[in-house]
Amino acid sequence: MQHNVLDARISPYGSLDVLSRLEVGKLLSASQGNLYPLFRSCSLAVLNYGDYLDDGRELLERYKTFDIRVIQEERGIKLDLRNAPASVFVDGQMIRGINEHLFSVLRDVVYTDDAINNNPRFDLNTSDGITNAVFHILRNAGIMRPLTNPRMVVCWGGHSIPPDEYDYSKDVGHQLGLRNLDICTGCGPGAMKGPMKGAAIGHAKQRIKGQYLGISEPGIIASESPNPIVNDLVIMPDIEKRLEAFVRTGHAIVVFPGGVGTAEEILYILGILMDPENSRIPFPLIFTGPASAAGYFEMIDQFITDTLGLVARQFYRVVIDDAETVGRLVQEGVEEVRLFRKKTDDAYYFNWQLKIHSLFQQPFIPTHESMRSLDLHKGNAPHLLAAHLRRAFSGIVAGNVKESGILAIEEKGLFELHGDVSVLKPLDTLLTAFVEQQRMKLPTATTYTPCYKLLSQENTQNS
Amino acid sequence: MQHNVLDARISPYGSLDVLSRLEVGKLLSASQGNLYPLFRSCSLAVLNYGDYLDDGRELLERYKTFDIRVIQEERGIKLDLRNAPASVFVDGQMIRGINEHLFSVLRDVVYTDDAINNNPRFDLNTSDGITNAVFHILRNAGIMRPLTNPRMVVCWGGHSIPPDEYDYSKDVGHQLGLRNLDICTGCGPGAMKGPMKGAAIGHAKQRIKGQYLGISEPGIIASESPNPIVNDLVIMPDIEKRLEAFVRTGHAIVVFPGGVGTAEEILYILGILMDPENSRIPFPLIFTGPASAAGYFEMIDQFITDTLGLVARQFYRVVIDDAETVGRLVQEGVEEVRLFRKKTDDAYYFNWQLKIHSLFQQPFIPTHESMRSLDLHKGNAPHLLAAHLRRAFSGIVAGNVKESGILAIEEKGLFELHGDVSVLKPLDTLLTAFVEQQRMKLPTATTYTPCYKLLSQENTQNS
Amino acid sequence: MQHNVLDARISPYGSLDVLSRLEVGKLLSASQGNLYPLFRSCSLAVLNYGDYLDDGRELLERYKTFDIRVIQEERGIKLDLRNAPASVFVDGQMIRGINEHLFSVLRDVVYTDDAINNNPRFDLNTSDGITNAVFHILRNAGIMRPLTNPRMVVCWGGHSIPPDEYDYSKDVGHQLGLRNLDICTGCGPGAMKGPMKGAAIGHAKQRIKGQYLGISEPGIIASESPNPIVNDLVIMPDIEKRLEAFVRTGHAIVVFPGGVGTAEEILYILGILMDPENSRIPFPLIFTGPASAAGYFEMIDQFITDTLGLVARQFYRVVIDDAETVGRLVQEGVEEVRLFRKKTDDAYYFNWQLKIHSLFQQPFIPTHESMRSLDLHKGNAPHLLAAHLRRAFSGIVAGNVKESGILAIEEKGLFELHGDVSVLKPLDTLLTAFVEQQRMKLPTATTYTPCYKLLSQENTQNS
Amino acid sequence: MQHNVLDARISPYGSLDVLSRLEVGKLLSASQGNLYPLFRSCSLAVLNYGDYLDDGRELLERYKTFDIRVIQEERGIKLDLRNAPASVFVDGQMIRGINEHLFSVLRDVVYTDDAINNNPRFDLNTSDGITNAVFHILRNAGIMRPLTNPRMVVCWGGHSIPPDEYDYSKDVGHQLGLRNLDICTGCGPGAMKGPMKGAAIGHAKQRIKGQYLGISEPGIIASESPNPIVNDLVIMPDIEKRLEAFVRTGHAIVVFPGGVGTAEEILYILGILMDPENSRIPFPLIFTGPASAAGYFEMIDQFITDTLGLVARQFYRVVIDDAETVGRLVQEGVEEVRLFRKKTDDAYYFNWQLKIHSLFQQPFIPTHESMRSLDLHKGNAPHLLAAHLRRAFSGIVAGNVKESGILAIEEKGLFELHGDVSVLKPLDTLLTAFVEQQRMKLPTATTYTPCYKLLSQENTQNS
Repeated sequence: MQHNVLDARISPYGSLDVLSRLEVGKLLSASQGNLYPLFRSCSLAVLNYGDYLDDGRELLERYKTFDIRVIQEERGIKLDLRNAPASVFVDGQMIRGINEHLFSVLRDVVYTDDAINNNPRFDLNTSDGITNAVFHILRNAGIMRPLTNPRMVVCWGGHSIPPDEYDYSKDVGHQLGLRNLDICTGCGPGAMKGPMKGAAIGHAKQRIKGQYLGISEPGIIASESPNPIVNDLVIMPDIEKRLEAFVRTGHAIVVFPGGVGTAEEILYILGILMDPENSRIPFPLIFTGPASAAGYFEMIDQFITDTLGLVARQFYRVVIDDAETVGRLVQEGVEEVRLFRKKTDDAYYFNWQLKIHSLFQQPFIPTHESMRSLDLHKGNAPHLLAAHLRRAFSGIVAGNVKESGILAIEEKGLFELHGDVSVLKPLDTLLTAFVEQQRMKLPTATTYTPCYKLLSQENTQNS
Repeated sequence: MQHNVLDARISPYGSLDVLSRLEVGKLLSASQGNLYPLFRSCSLAVLNYGDYLDDGRELLERYKTFDIRVIQEERGIKLDLRNAPASVFVDGQMIRGINEHLFSVLRDVVYTDDAINNNPRFDLNTSDGITNAVFHILRNAGIMRPLTNPRMVVCWGGHSIPPDEYDYSKDVGHQLGLRNLDICTGCGPGAMKGPMKGAAIGHAKQRIKGQYLGISEPGIIASESPNPIVNDLVIMPDIEKRLEAFVRTGHAIVVFPGGVGTAEEILYILGILMDPENSRIPFPLIFTGPASAAGYFEMIDQFITDTLGLVARQFYRVVIDDAETVGRLVQEGVEEVRLFRKKTDDAYYFNWQLKIHSLFQQPFIPTHESMRSLDLHKGNAPHLLAAHLRRAFSGIVAGNVKESGILAIEEKGLFELHGDVSVLKPLDTLLTAFVEQQRMKLPTATTYTPCYKLLSQENTQNS
Repeated sequence: MQHNVLDARISPYGSLDVLSRLEVGKLLSASQGNLYPLFRSCSLAVLNYGDYLDDGRELLERYKTFDIRVIQEERGIKLDLRNAPASVFVDGQMIRGINEHLFSVLRDVVYTDDAINNNPRFDLNTSDGITNAVFHILRNAGIMRPLTNPRMVVCWGGHSIPPDEYDYSKDVGHQLGLRNLDICTGCGPGAMKGPMKGAAIGHAKQRIKGQYLGISEPGIIASESPNPIVNDLVIMPDIEKRLEAFVRTGHAIVVFPGGVGTAEEILYILGILMDPENSRIPFPLIFTGPASAAGYFEMIDQFITDTLGLVARQFYRVVIDDAETVGRLVQEGVEEVRLFRKKTDDAYYFNWQLKIHSLFQQPFIPTHESMRSLDLHKGNAPHLLAAHLRRAFSGIVAGNVKESGILAIEEKGLFELHGDVSVLKPLDTLLTAFVEQQRMKLPTATTYTPCYKLLSQENTQNS
Repeated sequence: MQHNVLDARISPYGSLDVLSRLEVGKLLSASQGNLYPLFRSCSLAVLNYGDYLDDGRELLERYKTFDIRVIQEERGIKLDLRNAPASVFVDGQMIRGINEHLFSVLRDVVYTDDAINNNPRFDLNTSDGITNAVFHILRNAGIMRPLTNPRMVVCWGGHSIPPDEYDYSKDVGHQLGLRNLDICTGCGPGAMKGPMKGAAIGHAKQRIKGQYLGISEPGIIASESPNPIVNDLVIMPDIEKRLEAFVRTGHAIVVFPGGVGTAEEILYILGILMDPENSRIPFPLIFTGPASAAGYFEMIDQFITDTLGLVARQFYRVVIDDAETVGRLVQEGVEEVRLFRKKTDDAYYFNWQLKIHSLFQQPFIPTHESMRSLDLHKGNAPHLLAAHLRRAFSGIVAGNVKESGILAIEEKGLFELHGDVSVLKPLDTLLTAFVEQQRMKLPTATTYTPCYKLLSQENTQNS
């Protein structure tokens, strides 16, 4: 199969306007040196919109000759593209949304490298330092709206879902949009695109200019290319900062059916909300899907209560096949959030008060060793067990779709997970079901080969 | 079946701001006297969005207790609604788009009555007088964009179409939106809604605030309630002024498959473009549909060439199942229009140069007599024959779905149409096909009963 | 003395955008036929800004070869100027404010002629008809701000005043501007320019985009050319409609020292406020000037109480040399106006409730006969006596500075005014003082020659 | 004399919106610790607008009880003021321009301390590091307009000037404003206020929202309180960075008559323009004043040619009593600047290419020792001699009006300046003339006591 390509030179629209010479220099050098592979692969992912691939390697393989350079011209910088996917051009003009995304990638890749990673003022070994870094990356991206009331709803769910789940996610988005709520997702297809499309129509009916925020990270962007509806795109440096960005900018979270990635996200938010330090902070969390997804959420609910205990149920609500109720519940929840922030003199645009344990913040690099040493025992406090489970899912996602993970598995065999049988059994049940329901990979792959094995122990650790 | 209703009091958003006492008085009186039934029925149609009915009588029947009053409050007027359909409210708040539509109805009903009909300065017996009236109604509605380049694409087609035709109309809208083109339709469901939805997504990707113009008229609005995406709504006083509004504000026309109403529109535009006085005026006209609609357009094409001659073909292009090509052709055509207007110093916002024959302008009231006296003979110049055929279709639409027409048929029997067999035969073929393809009414009706009979003559008139 | 002239072709900025062919035709014909002299002389007055002349004839004489034509070009109309005063160009470009004024003149001259004078829908023989005409001219000029709170302060006073009075008028304008109040004047030099300049600085300090409304009329514009700060200019068709425009759009009035024209304005507003039908309508009216003007206002106050009675004093306040107090009093008064309008559900943008007697509305053409027949007797109700006195002053202004008046005097001798000695004596005193203080004409004229004589009767009419 | 004071709590308008917790903490701490005296004194200077004092100590003395605190309230920070000068309040509300200035002071004081001074990423020992710091302070203040063409004109001149010079500076500002040019000054009274007022009127006539940029520094702000017309205020950390900010943001410089401070500025810009490395960079520089100032500029011109050589004349033009010509020359010069920047792909908003020698960049602290060691010899290259002379003037300004300088003189006697007689003689002549013309201090001081003595040497250094 042949993939059409085009050359183009594009200018930014109003971003990257006032730059110092030093900054221009750093941008220019994104085209060369050690930042280049990252910049190139993220750019390519943005340009590949509409042709989602589960495997980032395939994308890079497909457009081997693709090249992108930052150049300086009169009154600012431009991007020079060679052999770029032709599908993002309309009659030779790049779609403006894609253009903006490319400059967002450039901005975030350079800013993170220069102003965060190589800046002694950010101590990424401390929780506060990481949170501060997340805040500065988001602010530099200009995505916070200081003057508006809370209205950002994070939508999570699978990128590879059946049509009825996709349509339902549009319905929910429509109901949220009709209620003047904005949408934030991980910005790929499926449950990440549906709510935005629905909300766009809802906003049009309400005559609102909505915000469609996409939060990605280099490891996932290739398989979750941002839809051009996304009108604020930010590339966080890693999974953990991406997750923190979701929960600190969102005023509510809606979870649609998904796969392992979605399970990871559910564990992440539950682990935070179950942290005793967050007990008084309101945070609306709703699991929802069409009638056909009722079984899915029963299974999820079962897994949560089996592992984290019945108490976990107080932190979420399950709504089946009722988009309007989801809309209403979210709106009510967001209003509670507003009142709480107002009462506690906290910002509306960033959830400073939420305590995020360092187990959720420190980047987890899934290796055979780090996977093996996860502490999947009931003796842990539920919010810490959630943290370990989150890492387990993260590792499985890597083993499934990320280049490094796939290579590691190819080389050293399956990941091993250790823990109580009362944790691993539910986990096994869940993962098996994901496989059966084809929620582990995009349906293009014929059969799923697991990348892990579970090794349970009867004796739990002492607590 | 029960229909939920609500009471509400709503304010206009920025419209109807600076009014004289006299004007306020006229608005207040729209709630009483002879304007009230018109105002009430159009308002009800706007409020019934989402629950399309082919028969306006059914709507009025359903909401018998609905009442709407104009009231004067501090700093302006408001609308007081009783027993209004509940579906246009979100958590008790009326959707803003619907709110705007209600005030558009009020504005146009009162303006047309006061400033056009009862104004000696508009001579509605002359062609220029009618065109001037059309212009003033449109300007009073604030729908013209003097500072932008031509970009308005009129989309015509059926309100009751199969899913694949609907999806295709969205695809075309998406391609138009990606090319920064706006959409104008008759504002009901089906092919009138699809292009707007598609364009809305295309505009979002291009970061454009699009214009979605709906042009309706009192006789049709009940069965073609404006979608709230419509962000400019105007109610023209009758069919002919609505059609004139389409062709004078549009810079191109795209026709999707439809029924008799669509045939009426096709005859209307062809009759104008074939007028020798318009020979040098560029006007892109494209017939398009998905693969399944190929037969439909062959049939239309056959009917056109049979009745108006092969020469008619030079005025339109048929594109099957290729939304992107439609987008490209429209864009090229609109650019030609722009250059022509520029060269001839004509406005971009109103096609003053187009000659519209009075047969197309004078309101046609379908009665047994007026139908019988239509001149369906080949001896007519093609553009005049088109005018008579347009009227024939208009009468059939009335006999099918309009209260007055249905009553007339019930009382006096079928409409009779007289003409050459070389005209009536193709007409019969077309109408029969419409019936077979269920394009005559919404599919809810079980079988279609024709409202006409064709009486052909072998001898044509002398030319 | 030579006057530099230039040719130029100018486009409108966003005004006159969406025009019908008929309207374009009417604009084009403003360059010819009976509207042309009016259009040309008003345009010339606008272009002569900065070089104020008391005598309109001198202006026409000076720029004999000046010509202005409306032409139609691609996408709209333009103005073609020949031999226009060079001083309104900066490096060959016309000052944008002047450009706007020229198109305002065109707009109002054509609109008044077409939509008011030649429109059977406006009955200018009735009080309501005149008020409606005033409203429509103002609305067509786009000068009303429906969404803002009341903030328009009308400033009256002489165009030919000493420097300390001018500086004081700037101080007052500054204090008004600091209080977010806008300024409306007759738009010439002196007390009509000072408050705008002061307010512009005050608005800049408060970061406000102020409205500087100039209301002129063809007979006065030559000697009161609009300052380019005026960002809303409207040309009313005659003196009376201009005065009505002042009092219906203004929320307060400040009067600075002036001459006969100012006296006319004082009588106008007092006659309205003293009308028993207006007794409950709040309307702040303040007479103010620097310390040197204390005597002037004592004289005015004396004249008012002598002719209209002590009761008149309750309708105005005199503030000497205290700009800040003027600012505070006006702001308080405007707030009272706001509350009153709110309570009575009246518009903020137009004072509909104010009753204006037809003696103030019907155009007064000063001739020997009309002047002679003025009814200057104490037997009249005070507000009617004020109306007659207003007309007397109006006639004297005409005899002093207007072409028609000057010619009449040259031909038939002085105007004669008849009335009670108790009215004419104060009038004589006041006029004599004006002469002595050189408030009758611009100081360029060497000596003032009266244009009237007063003929008093001992016997007053029965009351 | 008593000074009225008020308490108030004020909110920022749109600035300081999205802050991290750390940043909020830093702002809060501006109210305490070592930043407080600086923050308080600059704030007081802003609040003392309109009552200019030459001596900062007097201001602090006058408002001993003044206090200002940063507090955190719902949704952001506020300023809490105690015993603040009452003159910046209008009916109890602080003038919005002053409000903005206070938050600008807070912003710059904290940013400079935190992000510049205590940031290892800025090496203030290098020329590039200083320039980068200047850029970042200006960008953080949001004063650069990346999308507009060059239009910023820096106006320098005395804060204490006679009325005719003040009026002339307004005329020049008016001519600049009419040409769509913006104004940047040091933001005090006199020649720093006149051009802004004039430009504000010019901009109003041209319907332009102008930029009025004030650049101050802590040592001078007390005697040069920003006029509230200033709509962009930035407080640079020291004299040298303030001067660099002027020449890097300005696209042209106009110098009005002034005193020693103005002489310092003239030497600064001449020293830069005469630097051989800048030889090809266009930079319009105009000295101008009313007819009465002709002698002043002859004196300046004489001093420049005597010390820097005749060659210096090619870098400036002297225009006497012709504001329009100044306007035209500036506009032409700015157009040249635009073409040059365009050709060299340099930013319009910051003059990166200008080489500024470190003698002009390194802060000069005038002490007896540093003054004595200035190298005022002809043997220096002219641009370096200019640098030393600039420092000499800077020291004299300090000795005249700055607290530290006055105390040093009181303690240790007069500053001594050493150099060639061919340099010191012209210097003596100039300074003596300044004294005679009362250009050394505000006229309130009765007589001027010099703070320096000149010690010339016959032998010049070898070159």
